[in-house]
Amino acid sequence: MGYCTGKTFRYDRASIQCYAAVVGKAENEGPYGGEFDEVIDDNRGGADTWEQAEAQFQKKAVGHVLRKSGLSPENIGVMFAGDLLNQCVSSSYGLKDYYIPFLGIYGACSTFAEGLLLSGAMVNAGYVDNAIAVTSSHFSSAERQFRFPLNYGGVRPPTAQWTATASGAALVASTGKPPFIRAATVGKIEDMGVTDVNNMGAAMAGAAYDTLSRHFTHMGSHPQDYDLIITGDLGLVGSELLHDLFKRDGVDIEKNHKDCGLMLFDRATQDVHAGGSGCGCSASMMCGHFLKRIESGELDRVLFCATGALMSTTMVQQGGSIPGIAHAVELTSY
Amino acid sequence: MGYCTGKTFRYDRASIQCYAAVVGKAENEGPYGGEFDEVIDDNRGGADTWEQAEAQFQKKAVGHVLRKSGLSPENIGVMFAGDLLNQCVSSSYGLKDYYIPFLGIYGACSTFAEGLLLSGAMVNAGYVDNAIAVTSSHFSSAERQFRFPLNYGGVRPPTAQWTATASGAALVASTGKPPFIRAATVGKIEDMGVTDVNNMGAAMAGAAYDTLSRHFTHMGSHPQDYDLIITGDLGLVGSELLHDLFKRDGVDIEKNHKDCGLMLFDRATQDVHAGGSGCGCSASMMCGHFLKRIESGELDRVLFCATGALMSTTMVQQGGSIPGIAHAVELTSY
Repeated sequence: MGYCTGKTFRYDRASIQCYAAVVGKAENEGPYGGEFDEVIDDNRGGADTWEQAEAQFQKKAVGHVLRKSGLSPENIGVMFAGDLLNQCVSSSYGLKDYYIPFLGIYGACSTFAEGLLLSGAMVNAGYVDNAIAVTSSHFSSAERQFRFPLNYGGVRPPTAQWTATASGAALVASTGKPPFIRAATVGKIEDMGVTDVNNMGAAMAGAAYDTLSRHFTHMGSHPQDYDLIITGDLGLVGSELLHDLFKRDGVDIEKNHKDCGLMLFDRATQDVHAGGSGCGCSASMMCGHFLKRIESGELDRVLFCATGALMSTTMVQQGGSIPGIAHAVELTSY
Repeated sequence: MGYCTGKTFRYDRASIQCYAAVVGKAENEGPYGGEFDEVIDDNRGGADTWEQAEAQFQKKAVGHVLRKSGLSPENIGVMFAGDLLNQCVSSSYGLKDYYIPFLGIYGACSTFAEGLLLSGAMVNAGYVDNAIAVTSSHFSSAERQFRFPLNYGGVRPPTAQWTATASGAALVASTGKPPFIRAATVGKIEDMGVTDVNNMGAAMAGAAYDTLSRHFTHMGSHPQDYDLIITGDLGLVGSELLHDLFKRDGVDIEKNHKDCGLMLFDRATQDVHAGGSGCGCSASMMCGHFLKRIESGELDRVLFCATGALMSTTMVQQGGSIPGIAHAVELTSY
């Protein structure tokens, strides 16, 4: 060891006041179809390009959050946003018209957890009355940027994941009502030496293991204390790796572990290989499905750990590996 | 109006404990040569590629900060880092070996101010004992990514700025000693409709005007209350625009305004056109030059407003404009 274990931040007055998810057609055809606030059937969403379409997903997700909260943009204290596109443009272009104080974040697919963690910190400390965390991803814009032009028709190996076309947004405030954000652990960059852009799950599993382990230690908790441990988009390969890493410590997290990447799509009927991925994958599963269940008390204590592969085509082309990161946010109904 | 004016956060126990700047050869040949902690003469810095070299700049800047503070990586609470490269890879690759809890941020050239703002917030609220803010830029990696391959030898118009090859890092803690971080204002995305990737200054001036104006209003302060108002990298074109925008309000900020982009290089003898730019420009000027003068009391009250052009080649190629953002951090010797 000797490494920094960091700290798990504790919050006693941060709640998620409202939340919304906007997804694409395939996402709404998955097992949780019907749970999302809006479905955009055309993957261009009426825009000229995929990047502009992705920006619209974020704009709409924040629009739904504002509508549900009854607040207008000038009532929002700060917004944390980021995405996978170069220079996080779906956030900056999608959100610029709201004129809300804006802090750009980058955590690849861990971005939604990073946004919740920072929104919770700022609200809990009283710097702002409320804060929005929002992110997105888009299959077409991500594939073009990170892998191949879509019309090249490249064959995707079984370890590849399918970038979700989706956005999720949450408004954090001191409402005194669930879902509460009780604690959060900042991830460290973990490099497992993975160089395959089609094996993101393996690149992220070590980071998830590290963050979850530190969170349990700091909280004095055990995996079985949680109704669910929800990872972002480890997919099939990354989830199995995570289970194995914990098994070495004699800890079984498999029983109450779920991965948004394995939930958003039906792997048996939708051709997504090792599962879904992308910032929008866990953001839409949290904002479409899980937060409702924490709010209602169906789930009492949940640990949400979103994982990100900090990959760049430039570094991969130079032979670099793909470092991973994972941030954890503990959510409760009480 | 009707827009969100946000809030200016006040801090009463956030100081910059130590800071360091690492720059390239041209930066050290400028007017402030000799003030930086380390100079890397070869723009590859012993690495194989420019991107890997830029990562080394960040690693070294943080190394100097750790050395000066006498702390080891496991004593650092959290690190905020980001840069201009796609997926902020000079941060993730440069800093991964420290294993410090890592929160990636993206504010283009406003990143160092965003990092100071968030580090100050987290330390001031007591979430962590200390936090590092770090960023970098590199002429060669940025030109290749955003404009042309260097060996293409494209002609740079007079409005173009020269991306600094530099990194700056600061450690924020509750030391009770100057430089103090007293207040901070989060920027909003402002789109002035600029579409020219060689005119970043114009794209950012509106954002600087908005953030500075809100900061003055919230603090009940006036430009003349500050020894200096330091912008990041507006350069010649952006600085003149900023002065003009304030003149419309009958406010003269020209007298005590300085721009790091106009300081880092000698425009008369170094071929940098409208001035320096890049995340590393203001970070190295702050960590090499200004923070020392606040620490010594030579400067008592300074408003640092770093500006960022949220540009992406993809959006510019699609005809999109370049939105700007600016975050302000108030630093004092008392």
